[in-house]
Amino acid sequence: MKILIKNCTALLMNGNDEIIENISIGIEGDKIKYIGKIPNDFNADKTIDATNKLVMPGLINAHTHIPMSLFRNYADDIPFWEWLTERIWPLEKRLTGEHVYWGSMLSIAEMIMSGITSFSDMYFLTDGIPRAVEETGVRGVLSKGLVGKDEDDNREFEEIREFIKIWNEKADGRITTRIAPHAPYSCLPGYMRRAIELAKEYNLGIHVHLSESKKEIEDSYKAFGKSPIQHVNDIGLFELPTLAAHCVYVSDEDIKILAEKNVCVVNNPGSNLKLGNGFAPVDKMLKSGVNLALGTDGSASNNNLNMFEEINLAALINKGINTDPTSVPASTAIKMATINGAKGIGLESEIGSIEINKKADIILIDLNKPHLYPRYNLMSSLAYSVQASDVDTVIVDGKILMENRELKTIDIEKVIYNSEKMAKDLIER
Amino acid sequence: MKILIKNCTALLMNGNDEIIENISIGIEGDKIKYIGKIPNDFNADKTIDATNKLVMPGLINAHTHIPMSLFRNYADDIPFWEWLTERIWPLEKRLTGEHVYWGSMLSIAEMIMSGITSFSDMYFLTDGIPRAVEETGVRGVLSKGLVGKDEDDNREFEEIREFIKIWNEKADGRITTRIAPHAPYSCLPGYMRRAIELAKEYNLGIHVHLSESKKEIEDSYKAFGKSPIQHVNDIGLFELPTLAAHCVYVSDEDIKILAEKNVCVVNNPGSNLKLGNGFAPVDKMLKSGVNLALGTDGSASNNNLNMFEEINLAALINKGINTDPTSVPASTAIKMATINGAKGIGLESEIGSIEINKKADIILIDLNKPHLYPRYNLMSSLAYSVQASDVDTVIVDGKILMENRELKTIDIEKVIYNSEKMAKDLIER
Repeated sequence: MKILIKNCTALLMNGNDEIIENISIGIEGDKIKYIGKIPNDFNADKTIDATNKLVMPGLINAHTHIPMSLFRNYADDIPFWEWLTERIWPLEKRLTGEHVYWGSMLSIAEMIMSGITSFSDMYFLTDGIPRAVEETGVRGVLSKGLVGKDEDDNREFEEIREFIKIWNEKADGRITTRIAPHAPYSCLPGYMRRAIELAKEYNLGIHVHLSESKKEIEDSYKAFGKSPIQHVNDIGLFELPTLAAHCVYVSDEDIKILAEKNVCVVNNPGSNLKLGNGFAPVDKMLKSGVNLALGTDGSASNNNLNMFEEINLAALINKGINTDPTSVPASTAIKMATINGAKGIGLESEIGSIEINKKADIILIDLNKPHLYPRYNLMSSLAYSVQASDVDTVIVDGKILMENRELKTIDIEKVIYNSEKMAKDLIER
Repeated sequence: MKILIKNCTALLMNGNDEIIENISIGIEGDKIKYIGKIPNDFNADKTIDATNKLVMPGLINAHTHIPMSLFRNYADDIPFWEWLTERIWPLEKRLTGEHVYWGSMLSIAEMIMSGITSFSDMYFLTDGIPRAVEETGVRGVLSKGLVGKDEDDNREFEEIREFIKIWNEKADGRITTRIAPHAPYSCLPGYMRRAIELAKEYNLGIHVHLSESKKEIEDSYKAFGKSPIQHVNDIGLFELPTLAAHCVYVSDEDIKILAEKNVCVVNNPGSNLKLGNGFAPVDKMLKSGVNLALGTDGSASNNNLNMFEEINLAALINKGINTDPTSVPASTAIKMATINGAKGIGLESEIGSIEINKKADIILIDLNKPHLYPRYNLMSSLAYSVQASDVDTVIVDGKILMENRELKTIDIEKVIYNSEKMAKDLIER
């Protein structure tokens, strides 16, 4: 399949922030083949006219738990422990593969409709999530949150080996996997070391929660005499490419470690605020050379999967914390949601920008909306004015997943019907 | 004109937060006539089926500067004084009535499309703003920002008298006016006293900027030996019903004054963050009995007029600042955007809730979106998941201004064309 996108105003993110006018983009198979002028012999099977639209790389949701859309708006405005132990955990215990599948389908529909082309997930490893990724055409980095003590058996690890064999590099390569020791407080040192060995065995990266709450820091000092980041660094976690979600409470020493070890920190501003955890020092981490990506976290703590909201939050909040309107400018927030996310999930040579020979993960934003006029600076528009609903067309791996806001690979009425049914079943069980 | 809205799931905001199912709402002329069951002899000229929609009071944008949409995305990510003095003021000096009119039309289109039915504005008083309000059918509380020294003449005051005579209570009563001494740093004591006298003469409320930045507090102590709030209180400003925008930097003593004097504080979280001013202590003010409304501020510092974003920000940010997930719950944020705003602009007996004999300012939200499933708690949905683009139908004063997202009183292509032209003209002048 060859796709021609013509009359593009495009933000390529290929090393600079410029928005260029009047170019064409040629897609062949899953890859971007031409940018600029297209040769006369490029016979497109499909032509998209991008007039009055902005063409940019698909957004990368670097930390989420997609089946948790089934818990959206179920438990809000209550203390964290009550939320987790009395509301979320009891529902999670009831989850079956069918719940996970329909929750994943609902989340993927929402993500595509808001311009997300890749996501990095941590949840239970039923085949519900990869099946949903395979069917819908999106790109997913999947991992199971490992929770265990030193004396626990290796059953979880065996399940993960099985999962990797079946799913890693599958769905035309759109599915990759990571090893996910859930967090240093839930995955004790001996168990975490086994997780690290497993990652080395399969040459996979790590996905972990780190330094999310004040309590976590206090508990870490009590248990290990050091911060969570210093603790997992000493265990050797950061010898592997690591995607570390949250990092809200980080000391200067922590930040130094994160930068030196090339850890990618995933900022989840919406979730950190909503759960009352606070504000990650994004500006400080950026200035110290840490790669910062952006994520929505799960729908139970957000309560949506809207990366344009997270972009807006990242840009706004840091200005407020630092009482500095130059903090985290628009282009930085957009980078966090695209190329930085690609680096974080180890796919920077494949996605995160529009470049020749990269995968064709591209979105088009409809600029013909009252809130997007006048047009002085489209980078500012993207960070401060654009809404998820302005995303018009979504291409992943050279395939059109949404066009003119119509989903092409998802029967949305069926997904909504079954998600509601699954949610009802969970509550009434 | 009689309108019947049937099959409503409705948030009435009539003193409680309950969402009730399966009711009908009957509108006659500009008023709500029936809620619940509709008499058989109510022969509606128009019937709206609200199945799969949420019916609620229109949102009230309690502090904005609507013509500033012409400066949207023109000057971002730069220091405040550079933004104001080198970018915004030079453009404002070039503004004509035509710019103001088209900027106002663009903003009103954006506001209607995001569910705002009333706004409270402070800007130059050309007839561009009231003309736009009159034509589009929205509700507006209009005021001119008075800036002056004690020795200045009364020219500005005479203009305001003229404006009040022509526009107050006009457009079927949809236009009301306030007196707006811009801020204590720009409107010196003698001049502000004259503004207070003018407000008393016409029995009008006040609209003022207060305690927005750290610098303002420091300057106030230098000039008057007290905080801006204590200063204007001593001058007598709060003897009149007062709408005070921002109040970011407020002491316990300030909060006590605001509560005692029934000042309505308008929280503008997006603008306060974006300009690097910080976070207003909303939770503390609420708990001290202050009436808190919500506003977008102007599009030059936001950069849109999206009250659902402000609702979301108000609910999220306060949880983050207070590291308390119970801070500013969903229902409180929704109140700030509806009934509290109505109180703030002195129209609580007319709008802000759906009650019999109140004005029919009502919006319908399309719930059939992936990000709004499942449906455990619609109040949470409103604060944490709903997007401005989910607003489907907007009724103001008993007239339909938008239906199925189609604007009924605005030629949007014409407005966009002319706004672009005006913006280009401003830059190139």
